[in-house]
Order: sequence, then C-alpha cells, then structure tokens
Amino acid sequence: MMKLYTYFRSSAAYRVRIALNLKQLDYEAVPVHLVRNGGEQRQTDYLALNPAGLVPTLIDDGNVLQQSLAIIEYLDEVHPQPALLPGSPAERARIRAIAQAIACDIHPVNNLRVLRYLVHELGVNDAQKNAWYRHWIAIGLSAVESMLAADPRTGLFCHGDTPTLADCCLVPQVFNAQRFDCDLSAMPTVMGIVERCAALDAFQRAAPGQQPDAE
Amino acid sequence: MMKLYTYFRSSAAYRVRIALNLKQLDYEAVPVHLVRNGGEQRQTDYLALNPAGLVPTLIDDGNVLQQSLAIIEYLDEVHPQPALLPGSPAERARIRAIAQAIACDIHPVNNLRVLRYLVHELGVNDAQKNAWYRHWIAIGLSAVESMLAADPRTGLFCHGDTPTLADCCLVPQVFNAQRFDCDLSAMPTVMGIVERCAALDAFQRAAPGQQPDAE
Repeated sequence: MMKLYTYFRSSAAYRVRIALNLKQLDYEAVPVHLVRNGGEQRQTDYLALNPAGLVPTLIDDGNVLQQSLAIIEYLDEVHPQPALLPGSPAERARIRAIAQAIACDIHPVNNLRVLRYLVHELGVNDAQKNAWYRHWIAIGLSAVESMLAADPRTGLFCHGDTPTLADCCLVPQVFNAQRFDCDLSAMPTVMGIVERCAALDAFQRAAPGQQPDAE
Repeated sequence: MMKLYTYFRSSAAYRVRIALNLKQLDYEAVPVHLVRNGGEQRQTDYLALNPAGLVPTLIDDGNVLQQSLAIIEYLDEVHPQPALLPGSPAERARIRAIAQAIACDIHPVNNLRVLRYLVHELGVNDAQKNAWYRHWIAIGLSAVESMLAADPRTGLFCHGDTPTLADCCLVPQVFNAQRFDCDLSAMPTVMGIVERCAALDAFQRAAPGQQPDAE
C-alpha cells in the first residue's frame, strides 16, 4: 500500500490527499508533526526521504516521491482514471497554470517557515504578519478568480465539470485563507467552485479536521 | 510564430527561453519591463493575457499560456523531441520534484514583488533584505544539492545525461544566486551541472545578458 507522509494542516499534503481520494487509492497516512519535537520534518530519517524537510512525501512501489504537484502528476500517469489533467495540451496547460498560480505564487510566500522568519528574524508583529498573509492571498486569489471568471472552459469546477489538479490546489488554499480571515467576497467564481468541491466525499475526507493527526 | 512575453532578468521567463532553445523553436520575444512605466506587467493589455501580471506568457496557435512550468510541459507535449521530461512516471516525477523545489520553494519567496513588500511595507533595510535572499537560496539550493548528490539517476545534468525541465529551472536560479553573491561552495553537484549547461548554445542564448531588452 502507498504511504503518505502528511501533516493535517499542510496544504501541500492536503492537495495530495484529495487526489488520492478522487482516484480511490488507499494509502497509509504517516503523520509528520511540523511543530512538535522541534519539527519532525527536520529529523534525520525524514530528511533521507525528503531532503528539503517538507511534507508531503509519497512512497509507492519503492519510489520515493516529493513535491505535491509532482506527486499528483505521477498518480495521474500511473492511475489515469479519473483524469486530473484531462484534455488537449492547451487544456492541460491551463489546468497546470491555475494550480501553479496557487502552488508557486501564493502558498510558498505564506508558508510556516516564511512566517516564522518574519517574526523571529525580522521582528514583525502579529498585525504585520496577518497583513502579509492577507496581502498575498488577496493578490494571488484575485488573479485566480480572473483566470476562472474570464474563461469559458471554467465549468462546475476550475476546468470543466469534473475536479482536476487545479481544484486539488484551490480548496486547500481557500481553507488557509478562511483560517486567516481573509476577505473572499470579491471571488464568487472561486467560492462557487470550492462549495461544489466541499460537497464531494473525496474532498471531505481529505480535510484537515478529518485526519488522524488532527488537533 | 510563437510569441513570448519576457523580461530579460525574470528567471521564470529565462526557464522558458531555455526550453524553447533546447527544442529549437523560433519565437518572437515581446519585452515586458517589470520596473519601467510603473511595471508594464500591470498594464491593462498585458493583464488581459496574464491576470496575475507576471511574466512569462506564451502565445502559440491562439492559445494564451501562463506559468513557466506549465508552458514548458505544454511545449514538451506538443514538440516531444528532445524530451524535457523523459523516462518512466517515477523518473518524470523526480524531474518535476527538482524543478518544483526551485520554482515553488525558492524563487517565489525571493521574487521582486516580495522584496519590494519587505522594503516598502515592513521597512526592512538592505542588509536584512540581502540576508533574507541568501537564507532562502541557501536552504533551498542545499535541498536541491542533496536531491542531486544522493541519487544515482543524476548524470551530467540533473536527471541523466541530457538537459531536462529541472536544468531549465536550476540555471536561472543559480544565476540569481550569483547576482546576490550567495555562497555556493557547498554545492558541487549543482555547480558542476550548471557549468555543463553553460557550455550549451541553448542555455547561452537564453541568458539575461543576451536578450534584446537586456540593460
């Protein structure tokens, strides 16, 4: 069985959990606590699997796989149905572009280790930290809203009427935004899609609160 | 002919220029100056092509494509030779993981707009800004060095003996690191690969200094 090194609140791990569920693939969840014990992701055993010390890591058939988007692409190549990157090269590029607008342009700047650096190295206060967080969410998700609202290929989900890689990224990002009380009122397309995802079992079971390591 | 909206110093655009050259694809370069005129990437005409206001954008056959990694995947699907994502699903996952360790974990945190926020909103001084830059380079490239040094699939290049998507990402990131005087002495595998890339015409012609908009 596949083994997923995960942390309930990590949005990168959350993306992979959604993809595994959409493909109805069973896996063993191995919790890596990012806060406790000085950060279990920095322990030697884990670093051997994931030199960056980040979650998730997926072990499948002896292959050690890192990076959430790379893992989901792998799952889609090995288990093609349901397709998380359907369509022509241009359509697949659109799905990837939406995913990367989240995974490259929003999430890394608001990652736990970046927020910690702001506080501990730059002496930023709580209000400044929250303003930082909301700034990158507002800019980043507005761009995603425009990409979605302006394009007839958007359907019930980010691309067409079935969930894709883009939805696997969007839902965890909006979860984070809500956790930090970001104003999402100007993002009706995004929020409509997130609502439709939330109605699906695959997304529900992947949610942070449903994980064995949830606090 | 394809049209690439590019800025000579943007490492995301640099990645795509390398990929286009490796595949020997002709393109028209349309410069988007990220500093002049208040940032040409924020002008209405450009935002219609790229709602995030980021470079690069590629126009091919009526398709408007955003996000450097999505663009390179598209090029690889439409023009499969030479393959920038060769091999089995697990090998392709490894190439993507190296690329994303750079494109998700290093580059976004040191992007121009993030540095500007540090200076203008958080009042960070020059020394602190440079320390921030070097911190994320050191952490991120060390992880890449470990991924490369520990894996027998690393060859003359990041994966095997021909350039892949991973090399398209690595070379621009090291270029940036050198521009900010980062210490790269602990990264012999990375630097050996970068040296071999630098000997190739496709990488040379993609370099910032060789672009029509270079300053």
